[in-house]
Amino acid sequence: MDLVIVGSVALDTIETPRGRVERALGGSAVYASLAASMFCRTGIVGVVGEDFTVVHRRVLEERGVDLSGLESVTGGRTFFWEGRYGADPNERETITTELNVFETFRPRLPEGFLSAGHLFLGNIDPDLQLSVLDQFPERPVTACDTMNFWIEGKRERLRDVLERTDILFVNDSEARQLSGESNLQQAARSISQWGPRVLVIKKGEHGAHLFTREGGFIAPAFPLDEVVDPTGAGDTFAGGFMGAIAAAGSLEDEDLRRAMVFGAVAASFTCERFSVERLKGLTIEEIRERYDLLSELARFARD
Amino acid sequence: MDLVIVGSVALDTIETPRGRVERALGGSAVYASLAASMFCRTGIVGVVGEDFTVVHRRVLEERGVDLSGLESVTGGRTFFWEGRYGADPNERETITTELNVFETFRPRLPEGFLSAGHLFLGNIDPDLQLSVLDQFPERPVTACDTMNFWIEGKRERLRDVLERTDILFVNDSEARQLSGESNLQQAARSISQWGPRVLVIKKGEHGAHLFTREGGFIAPAFPLDEVVDPTGAGDTFAGGFMGAIAAAGSLEDEDLRRAMVFGAVAASFTCERFSVERLKGLTIEEIRERYDLLSELARFARD
Repeated sequence: MDLVIVGSVALDTIETPRGRVERALGGSAVYASLAASMFCRTGIVGVVGEDFTVVHRRVLEERGVDLSGLESVTGGRTFFWEGRYGADPNERETITTELNVFETFRPRLPEGFLSAGHLFLGNIDPDLQLSVLDQFPERPVTACDTMNFWIEGKRERLRDVLERTDILFVNDSEARQLSGESNLQQAARSISQWGPRVLVIKKGEHGAHLFTREGGFIAPAFPLDEVVDPTGAGDTFAGGFMGAIAAAGSLEDEDLRRAMVFGAVAASFTCERFSVERLKGLTIEEIRERYDLLSELARFARD
Repeated sequence: MDLVIVGSVALDTIETPRGRVERALGGSAVYASLAASMFCRTGIVGVVGEDFTVVHRRVLEERGVDLSGLESVTGGRTFFWEGRYGADPNERETITTELNVFETFRPRLPEGFLSAGHLFLGNIDPDLQLSVLDQFPERPVTACDTMNFWIEGKRERLRDVLERTDILFVNDSEARQLSGESNLQQAARSISQWGPRVLVIKKGEHGAHLFTREGGFIAPAFPLDEVVDPTGAGDTFAGGFMGAIAAAGSLEDEDLRRAMVFGAVAASFTCERFSVERLKGLTIEEIRERYDLLSELARFARD
């Protein structure tokens, strides 16, 4: 096991201007592990109910994702989210959130996961993120995601997580909210003092910015002809990034840059179809091809 | 004369969260020529009133900008704009617009301008843009800027301009409005069929995208610690871009990429101070230094 991913496993009903799907496979751990498993051996820790069928499991198994940490609750129902997007994919409205079995989720790592060198803590309660960290005899290279809800409601516990985190994924507004700085450069400097030596600010269609203590990197997004469903794009980015980092086995500048671009490329595929449809049959060759296209689109000579 | 710039010369009263200036030098032709003159011999065509003082003229003259095409109307007042920005620099409110001498502006090119190899038509009435093109015995490499007001009100005349244009500068929403396509890739394809073989979509803090018939390029914005006043950033981008293109004397792929980055770098300086304050003493060495920093921030290895 190279990478353990802890997060939500969900069934999503999604409506966009391009169509609608009902109770389709989703959740941060699902998107992240489908992307990461392109690069390294990946296992997930999560919880599902009885409505999580063998068809759903097979999507992950076919990618080689280790499901021994996926708890199934008899008589329970899987986390359910229903949302709608407008013409602007950045504007989404949540119609329903049913936590179901996720409400009492207590992540328990199988024995075989405890020697993993890399950990991605998806966007869950900081108390649960801490409980995962506590289970490792030796702390792996740790990345974490979070959101405004935890920044507001559990700031102190989140700070405890960040002290034990190498890499933090947030979006612009979360970085501003977390740091209290309106400028992203200043926000990055503040946050890096709390623990994470690597900060990744995800900017959706505008790409992503990497901040380290030594410098930074601006990754472009892969330009798409059509965004069908942006659900899970940020989780796919994080999964692709962490998969590439686990495969490289280093947080050197060059490896971080490549991981950023692999994350951006993986996320672009997610947006092209509903749910995880585009990720299902995705090959590493398709990812590499798009990586090279993006490299050609973004290159320019030094002066 | 390498590059002729036609556009507004203005006095601006600007309020941002960082402060306020009153009746400060501004206008599209001013920002664009201050940037372009870092790279090539630049002349402007515009109109001012008696309130345009020798101090204002000197800012342009010290950059070597040829002012023989700058008409001065006795008893007239210079175009005046007053605006206010919120915490988000992308949200600006116009408080006052007084066209003054700009209302009856009829661009007249001095003899010495007619052999220029490059022309930048700032965002003015398409009828005036056409009248400028008509004055050249031989059409120079032509770039044009426009805005939603002309796209709505003078679409046919604008299409006539585009037929005689090599390079079009617009922002995302203008590209969508002009083409009727919500997706930028598709919008670019439509617009390129109307004339411009090069389309530059300016995205402010998110950089700019170049579309050509052969391919494209994604230029990052230079990340700033603080945006003091974004007024004129888009015009500075276009001026820096056109100055670099005029200096290179080609629209080859490599030259377009470099021009994009030079435009982005020039625009970043404009945002650092009010009005044209930061552009005044700017040196080509400072531009080159920031170009190299941006090149380091954006580079990544091929897979």
